[in-house]
Amino acid sequence: MKKSTKFLTLIAVASLLVSSITSCNKKAEETKKTVTEPTFNLATAKAEIEAANKEFMAFFAAGDSVGLANLYTQDAKFMNTGAPAITGRKNIQSALSGIIKSGVSRADLRTVEVWGTEDLITEEGEISLFVEEAEVYQGKYIVVWKKDNGKWKLFRDIFNSNLPAE
Amino acid sequence: MKKSTKFLTLIAVASLLVSSITSCNKKAEETKKTVTEPTFNLATAKAEIEAANKEFMAFFAAGDSVGLANLYTQDAKFMNTGAPAITGRKNIQSALSGIIKSGVSRADLRTVEVWGTEDLITEEGEISLFVEEAEVYQGKYIVVWKKDNGKWKLFRDIFNSNLPAE
Repeated sequence: MKKSTKFLTLIAVASLLVSSITSCNKKAEETKKTVTEPTFNLATAKAEIEAANKEFMAFFAAGDSVGLANLYTQDAKFMNTGAPAITGRKNIQSALSGIIKSGVSRADLRTVEVWGTEDLITEEGEISLFVEEAEVYQGKYIVVWKKDNGKWKLFRDIFNSNLPAE
Repeated sequence: MKKSTKFLTLIAVASLLVSSITSCNKKAEETKKTVTEPTFNLATAKAEIEAANKEFMAFFAAGDSVGLANLYTQDAKFMNTGAPAITGRKNIQSALSGIIKSGVSRADLRTVEVWGTEDLITEEGEISLFVEEAEVYQGKYIVVWKKDNGKWKLFRDIFNSNLPAE
């Protein structure tokens, strides 16, 4: 081997090593990126929950208990006041139908805060119920939302009144 | 360069490359390990929440409203029935002191299920309150627990009765 050939070989080996190490560091960086940049964003989730609440209010205003029940997961629990928790869409539909039939024609939901992850969000909120234009119920709630086929659904729903029992 | 020297150089270069690539893959694997093996365990968290509930029951049985209030975060909300939410330890202490003074001497808490992460757990549970040995309240609750200096503290606490209002 000539001196110049030897030199070229050394250059080639060195560049091979450098490129291998560079690609290695790149790989590590890419892996790290996956870790430190979560795709989940709580503000986005909050907006999604608020949009889901708007659907809830629209179904309520339309007196559509089937539409309302479909906003819950199949295994949801509706933890109503004055009765044990009600489990499952069919039973939840009956309960909501009963509330609508009692004359409640509007539900106002206001999200206060949310916490959680891409699969499960816990929401604190405020609720008002109206019979015609009169507010008949003023309360607070916690709803646990579960991602179900890409859509947030009510999974646990508990609330109570701000007004003293008569 | 002799043929044998050339061969040895090749071997050395090859082994250098292999070791560089191996260490690179090891690095990537280690990084991956950090991602796929979370230190958080939901079953452990559930046991910790149950232990915190035992503390709650012990303070309740001792009539210790200060001890109870210290199980809540500084900014906690106690979302009692029949009144707007109560915020902060001092106000929560007053509310719990009122319940104790009304004669309630025992609170039974039973965790049904928990969801969440290492910082925030949402718990579904069942509660009974007793005056002497008589059960005067039977209800359900959702508590949002927050990790506060390494300890789970009640952050949101909402409940309602299973029994119809009289």
